[in-house]
Amino acid sequence: MTGNARAKRAKVARWSILASLLLAGQLAEAKGETPERRWTLEDIVTAPKVTSLALSSDGSELAYIQRAGDIEKNQTMHIVYRLDLSTGERTEMVRSGVAMQLEAIEGERAWNVLLDMGEGQQLYRVDAGSKAELVLASEASVTVGETEGGLFAISFIAPHRVGVLAYDWSPDRKWLWYAALKPGSAKPEVHFDNEVVLQKQRRRAPVSAVVELRLRSASGEDMLVATRPASDRLAFHYAGTVSWANDGLRYYVETTSGTQSDKSEAFELKFGSTTSIRAGEQQGLPSVDFVKGPRGGLLTTDGYGSALELVEARADGTRHSYGRYPFYLGHPRAAGSWRSADGRRTILGMRTTTHPRYGLALVSSRGARAIVTQGSLTQCDFRENLDWGICVEESMTQPPRLVKVEPANGKVSHIIPLSARHEAITPLRVTSHQWKNRSGHTATGFIVWPREYDPARRYPSILVTHGGDADERFADQDLQWEYPIQLWAERGYVVILANEPSPRQSPELMAAFAQWVSGTGPLSPVEVQRRAWLNVVETFEDVVSQLVLKGIVDSTRVGIAGYSRGSQITNVAITQSEHFKVASSGDGHFLEPAIYPISIRSYGAIFGGPPAGKYLEHYLRISPSLRADRVCAPVIQQVAGPHAGAIDFHVALRAAGVPAHISMYPGETTASEETHLFHIPSNRLLAMRENLAWFDFWLLGKRDPDAPFSEHFDRWAAMADGFSKNCLVKADRNQDEAPSVR
Amino acid sequence: MTGNARAKRAKVARWSILASLLLAGQLAEAKGETPERRWTLEDIVTAPKVTSLALSSDGSELAYIQRAGDIEKNQTMHIVYRLDLSTGERTEMVRSGVAMQLEAIEGERAWNVLLDMGEGQQLYRVDAGSKAELVLASEASVTVGETEGGLFAISFIAPHRVGVLAYDWSPDRKWLWYAALKPGSAKPEVHFDNEVVLQKQRRRAPVSAVVELRLRSASGEDMLVATRPASDRLAFHYAGTVSWANDGLRYYVETTSGTQSDKSEAFELKFGSTTSIRAGEQQGLPSVDFVKGPRGGLLTTDGYGSALELVEARADGTRHSYGRYPFYLGHPRAAGSWRSADGRRTILGMRTTTHPRYGLALVSSRGARAIVTQGSLTQCDFRENLDWGICVEESMTQPPRLVKVEPANGKVSHIIPLSARHEAITPLRVTSHQWKNRSGHTATGFIVWPREYDPARRYPSILVTHGGDADERFADQDLQWEYPIQLWAERGYVVILANEPSPRQSPELMAAFAQWVSGTGPLSPVEVQRRAWLNVVETFEDVVSQLVLKGIVDSTRVGIAGYSRGSQITNVAITQSEHFKVASSGDGHFLEPAIYPISIRSYGAIFGGPPAGKYLEHYLRISPSLRADRVCAPVIQQVAGPHAGAIDFHVALRAAGVPAHISMYPGETTASEETHLFHIPSNRLLAMRENLAWFDFWLLGKRDPDAPFSEHFDRWAAMADGFSKNCLVKADRNQDEAPSVR
Repeated sequence: MTGNARAKRAKVARWSILASLLLAGQLAEAKGETPERRWTLEDIVTAPKVTSLALSSDGSELAYIQRAGDIEKNQTMHIVYRLDLSTGERTEMVRSGVAMQLEAIEGERAWNVLLDMGEGQQLYRVDAGSKAELVLASEASVTVGETEGGLFAISFIAPHRVGVLAYDWSPDRKWLWYAALKPGSAKPEVHFDNEVVLQKQRRRAPVSAVVELRLRSASGEDMLVATRPASDRLAFHYAGTVSWANDGLRYYVETTSGTQSDKSEAFELKFGSTTSIRAGEQQGLPSVDFVKGPRGGLLTTDGYGSALELVEARADGTRHSYGRYPFYLGHPRAAGSWRSADGRRTILGMRTTTHPRYGLALVSSRGARAIVTQGSLTQCDFRENLDWGICVEESMTQPPRLVKVEPANGKVSHIIPLSARHEAITPLRVTSHQWKNRSGHTATGFIVWPREYDPARRYPSILVTHGGDADERFADQDLQWEYPIQLWAERGYVVILANEPSPRQSPELMAAFAQWVSGTGPLSPVEVQRRAWLNVVETFEDVVSQLVLKGIVDSTRVGIAGYSRGSQITNVAITQSEHFKVASSGDGHFLEPAIYPISIRSYGAIFGGPPAGKYLEHYLRISPSLRADRVCAPVIQQVAGPHAGAIDFHVALRAAGVPAHISMYPGETTASEETHLFHIPSNRLLAMRENLAWFDFWLLGKRDPDAPFSEHFDRWAAMADGFSKNCLVKADRNQDEAPSVR
Repeated sequence: MTGNARAKRAKVARWSILASLLLAGQLAEAKGETPERRWTLEDIVTAPKVTSLALSSDGSELAYIQRAGDIEKNQTMHIVYRLDLSTGERTEMVRSGVAMQLEAIEGERAWNVLLDMGEGQQLYRVDAGSKAELVLASEASVTVGETEGGLFAISFIAPHRVGVLAYDWSPDRKWLWYAALKPGSAKPEVHFDNEVVLQKQRRRAPVSAVVELRLRSASGEDMLVATRPASDRLAFHYAGTVSWANDGLRYYVETTSGTQSDKSEAFELKFGSTTSIRAGEQQGLPSVDFVKGPRGGLLTTDGYGSALELVEARADGTRHSYGRYPFYLGHPRAAGSWRSADGRRTILGMRTTTHPRYGLALVSSRGARAIVTQGSLTQCDFRENLDWGICVEESMTQPPRLVKVEPANGKVSHIIPLSARHEAITPLRVTSHQWKNRSGHTATGFIVWPREYDPARRYPSILVTHGGDADERFADQDLQWEYPIQLWAERGYVVILANEPSPRQSPELMAAFAQWVSGTGPLSPVEVQRRAWLNVVETFEDVVSQLVLKGIVDSTRVGIAGYSRGSQITNVAITQSEHFKVASSGDGHFLEPAIYPISIRSYGAIFGGPPAGKYLEHYLRISPSLRADRVCAPVIQQVAGPHAGAIDFHVALRAAGVPAHISMYPGETTASEETHLFHIPSNRLLAMRENLAWFDFWLLGKRDPDAPFSEHFDRWAAMADGFSKNCLVKADRNQDEAPSVR
């Protein structure tokens, strides 16, 4: 902080001036040195993501957790920062491979947070002055993550030992409820039937662990309340979602014995007692996120497309409409919710539909109002009276910054940028779009334009897709995975970030997605495939065609890339469409016959049954490996493990003479795996360089001198030789005889 | 040894009398206590197998390695015994999880052997008096076996650390050549293409290791001669197959860099030099087993069926025939070969064709003669002059015993039985058979008869198959795996041990098997499938029909069981035939589409290409999981790991409403696997009890009170309920519309 800023403090309203000066100063400082700073791969890997923030109890300080790749350590690190809101002074309190569940401590300028400081994941106290102080430790003998002997749990961090899974203080802080992870039986056992089937896609054997739900009193007495299997999701992830009363508490467990039952059971425990008392069973798991509105009902958004409506539904069945809004509640990445003590106002995180970003909705008896900026408000915390709060604001072009939000007047004012490094990059031009496909469905998305775009030229283009994750966030891995979209733009590609047509726009689409999830419904497999996959591919064909028609994109040089859901779409696109000349498919193998045993429910909707007999025709329509002989695009697959379906597709492509390459990125050791979203910076850097080289090779005919595995070029070239001839023949043949699925 | 026996020693020819008395005495002793001793599962698990034997240099003592399950320790153990041939006194020299490469030390009554005495696999010296003495140790930091961090190698013992892989003394014992296993790079690396594909069926990541070929002088100087990748099979398994000259040595390595090239390269090293000199490259790996005959040519057997001929082929292309014999050389389980110093006589291990057992062939310029007994001679060692040797003799009904073999007169005389426990069992009746199938092919095999067989009754029957492994060996795991054939006979089943029609009987069959191995040849996939799989199933149908016709077998109560190759046949049998009412399929998944990526060569012969497009019809003809809806037999699968194809078949069966059960047996820890041939006694016992319960349930309608997992009966019964109706419908439908493959 500069003396200049400090001098002005007394004169003006504290927030906005201070903040904007801080921002201006830091931006000027950052940008002053290099007039045009271009994107690097290291910028992408080190792009910060705020995963949590919390105001101190008196509102004078803010703590937040920032996650980013640490290239030097080659780890994804979490840093817990503290910001003095009166001085703008920011200090690092602690850094750790794990940091979660950040909560302000009542009456102090301090926070609780779960950290791994070398003794496994435990509960700490952090504040401005001292180093992190251990509050509660439970012996951490279970490792969570994809490593030998580890408890498998979907995670995007390195395998780590866990003592305390989650915690919850009683309002008076006299009682500390927590979940501890403990080893189960280590005796190897014979496995049967579904226990075996579920290991088809697991590289390592499952290990046994249990969750202990425990209560600690102010005097330090520690009591085991219940022991649950690690498969109890309520116990494992939410420590049983405890709710406190004056004389005791209530907690919930999933009524399961190893399988997921979708039923839960409540228990009550009186303080001082050692015995839990059953308090009823219910369908479903108790939601922690239903938000009450000013009328005492639950706030929700209903309807489709432009008829999307904000509604308060009361227990008596009546509903109050706040009107139609182009946003919806309940997105897992939207900000949380806050309700004023008098219950008259509620703030909720939401996501907008037409230009996808995250904002807030203020709901009171007077009505509802959206608080949106050009970017997204992705993490927030508000004062109890909702007078003001702090959020992270970010966008495709704006690195995360802290802003102050005043709900009453909707004012959003800058406080401080979080990354000078990223502020220093000269932003690329990114435009937001809506595209209508041939069936009348609308897809949203963005175009990242080449740094020096010339409207007179046609550009090579790469379409990147991952479900609906193209939205206003900064270099977020959720969308771009290991696809270096910014560097492609720097290199002269028109990069299309395309969302699928949202099922929220039409009950017809929603029905297919719902049936995919539940496995049952009125649609035929052909209809489910058409609406949830082929319609997406058609949409992207139409997006490309529109950009070709406008003279922007060169139709002969269009690639497609996507991981996970995006990998499904990529694989279906190249086996159904001739629009895409090259593809990069990331860590996916859904729709492959190999996955049937672990996807029986959803495959029931998509294919009707197993890949044999009368159901086989449904696989032949859409399973990528069964259509490899129709592919006219070289395919790279980058995977975090030897997934059977991904390997089947690779081998099928090679058998069909299609240039195909698969790269498997390793974990920290040979005994562990990289995660679905890569968490090892060196893997991210290599995989992005590999993608740069792959698309340059196939779309531009260039051998990238920065390729990480330059020895592969000769093999690619050899595959290219045989391929082009084959593919012309194939294209002809397909036009003649292809029994079109669509 | 009794005083009685010792007194007679001077009077008679030492060998035969001593031996037969010893035998008679021990047998009487063993049998005296229980007049009829029936088979137990523990008898099967503890059945001894001699894996190696070696006479001392003066012929006065014999050492042998005996492998057997140790139920108390729950390990497969190797015990190295020493037998004083003059007194008949037998002593245990050492026991170890690993014992291999037993070799007599010239000029001493002592042996070298590789053992793991706690420091990993190292070279030891053993003799009568003292405990095993370490001769050579190399730091054992690499674990071999299916465990995390282990180097994967097909093995039937527990994962263990290896220092010395193999050794070879120079004839003057001044030089010790050996192969040491060392860790390679532990740095996790990105894997590409085939490196990834090969991991489709591997549960854990490959680790890197190298083989050091080293030479140690008499004075203890130790020199690294060459470092080879662990994938070099010549280096890994044979320490480079060294051959000694007066001034140096020659060794061979596989010219490979990670892939198997089927080419080798020779190097020469002079004593005292540190540099190997290239000495030529050749196609193929140098065989260690070509045996010279009295005419200086190589001995081999040629031809098919009754025209099988013993031949000596000279380098000049001429060949000498010793005539037609019903045996062949070169079977991997036949005894080795010995050539007299003057080169005039050679003894070779062989296997007979009509009543399958192992014997010896003595070949001299006067002609050839077979040495066979009613059982098999499976391990031997001979004196240098071939005057006499010691072999193990065993049969279906006879536990292993040591015998003396005098080649000159073909005399085989008993020395000592190796297992009093197994001698004590009242033998079951086992008969040897040849069956002709509808196509004129002959299959050999055995029937194990119920203990109290009543010719007036028809019996339930179980056919057990594993390639050609039904031969005269005692309770050998190679054939019976975890199928308790002796206990089935005790329980009143007629147990059929059926070999496939041997391809040695006809060029037509041989062509199909050769094409399966090489991947190329003149036959269509349909023909390969017909000759190598469907013909086997037809054969077994015909065997059963013949036994039904004779009134022996109840056609409504016939089961089939087999592991590995037997699992292929079992799975094909139940998806193509209605003869088998219940099945047990062990640790196999060949022919499944899931295996294509790791079986591209052989699947080329069997299916033409990958499971898609025009090749799919070939999979539909024979892949078990694609024909699950035709199965009318409940199927249990017992596996040593979560093999994708086995799981696919299980899931397909369940989807088709067929009662199906899969059990996966664990390794020593959750970080390791059971091996293809189970090596953990508790797993063997459980799996056999599971098979007893499975067949009793489905063939006899009984719930075995000794079932290891009795809680499964209710589930089996529930599956049975829905099934019987379905299956009648299916049987009708199949008769109407089945497009018969055969």
